[in-house]
Amino acid sequence: MSLTFYYAPQSSASPTHWILEELAIPYEKVLVDLKNADRKKEVFAKVNPNAKVPVIVHDETTIFESVAIAIYLGETFGVERGLFPAAGPSRGKAIQWLVWCNVSLHEAMSRMFWASNDRIPKEMHNAALAAAGKAEVARLLGILNAELDGKEYLVDDKFSIVDAHLCSWVEYVSICGVDMTGYAAIGAWSKRCLARPAAAVQ
Amino acid sequence: MSLTFYYAPQSSASPTHWILEELAIPYEKVLVDLKNADRKKEVFAKVNPNAKVPVIVHDETTIFESVAIAIYLGETFGVERGLFPAAGPSRGKAIQWLVWCNVSLHEAMSRMFWASNDRIPKEMHNAALAAAGKAEVARLLGILNAELDGKEYLVDDKFSIVDAHLCSWVEYVSICGVDMTGYAAIGAWSKRCLARPAAAVQ
Repeated sequence: MSLTFYYAPQSSASPTHWILEELAIPYEKVLVDLKNADRKKEVFAKVNPNAKVPVIVHDETTIFESVAIAIYLGETFGVERGLFPAAGPSRGKAIQWLVWCNVSLHEAMSRMFWASNDRIPKEMHNAALAAAGKAEVARLLGILNAELDGKEYLVDDKFSIVDAHLCSWVEYVSICGVDMTGYAAIGAWSKRCLARPAAAVQ
Repeated sequence: MSLTFYYAPQSSASPTHWILEELAIPYEKVLVDLKNADRKKEVFAKVNPNAKVPVIVHDETTIFESVAIAIYLGETFGVERGLFPAAGPSRGKAIQWLVWCNVSLHEAMSRMFWASNDRIPKEMHNAALAAAGKAEVARLLGILNAELDGKEYLVDDKFSIVDAHLCSWVEYVSICGVDMTGYAAIGAWSKRCLARPAAAVQ
C-alpha cells in the first residue's frame, strides 16, 4: 500500500493532515509551495487538474477535494479503527456534516473573504456583500452549536474524523476574525478535539 | 422502508430528484414553498435546521445537503442497481466529482451570482468580483470538459448517479448565462445524460 499526501501549511489540507494522523496509516508527505508557480504547475499537472491542495494518491488512485478525501479515507481505513461509521444511518450523518462544512459554511466564508479580505484586490471588495456572508456564517455556526449542545461529538456522540475535519474548519473561521464567543457548545467541543495528539499536526 | 423527499422546483433539489428517479425506489414527495415563510419554517423546524432543500428522511434518518444525499443514496441503493460504484477506488472518484461540483463549482458560481444577479440587491453587486467568479467557473468547466473528453461518462465510463448530479448542475450553470460553446465534451455528455427518461423529472 502506498499513500502520498500533497499539502501546504495553513491551507485546506489541514483537516486532511489531522485525519491522516488520527488514522495512523503510513503516508508520504509532499509539500507544495503554492507561491512557486512552476513547482505548483509541475505537481498539479500530475495529480490534480483542479490545482489545489489537498490531494492524495492511494496506490493508483488520485483524489482531490478534502471532503472527498475524508469520506474515502473514512470508509477505507476509518471504519476498522472506530473513527468513521460503517455504512448506514450514522454514515449518512457523517457525510452530511462533512459536506455541509465545505459546501454551506465554505460558501458563506468565501463570500465574506472575497468581498473584504486584505489579500483580495480592493476593487473586488463590497461591504454589503461581506456583511451578508458574515451573517450567513453566524447563522451556520448557530446550527453547528445547536447540534453540539449536550453532545461530546457530532456523530453518535463518539469522536470521528468528522469532528477533526469540522474542528479544523472552525479554527480557520476563528482565524478569519469571526467572533466565536456566542457558541459555547462549539467552544467546548473544539477544546476536546484540539486536545487530541493528532490535532497538533495541522 | 419509508423515504420522504423535501423539494422545490428549479432548486438544489433537482439533482436529487433525478437521482431518486434513476434509482427507481418508492418515495414520497413533499413540495416546500420556499416563498411561504411560515410553511418553510414549519417544515424545516422538523427536518432541516439548515433551512434549505433538498432533504430526505429515510426511515428515521434525516439527511440534508444534496451531495451527502447523493452519496448516501448511492451506497444504500445505487451499488446493487449498478448506478454507484462499490467501495474502493471508483467510489473515491465518484465522491470526488460530486464534492468538486458542490464545493468548487458552486463556490465560483455563488461568487458570480451574488455579485451580479438581478435577484440580489444592487448594493451587493461588484463587477470585478463577478468577473473573477465567472473566470473561475470557466476554468472549472475546462477541467470537467478535459475529464469527459473521449469518455461517455465520468466514473469507469459507465453512467452513474454522479453523471445525473453533475449534469443537473451544468444545466443550472447554463441557465445562469455561462457560455457553454467551448466545452464540446460536456455538451455531448450532457445530451447523453439528458436523454435518459429519469432526467425529465428535474
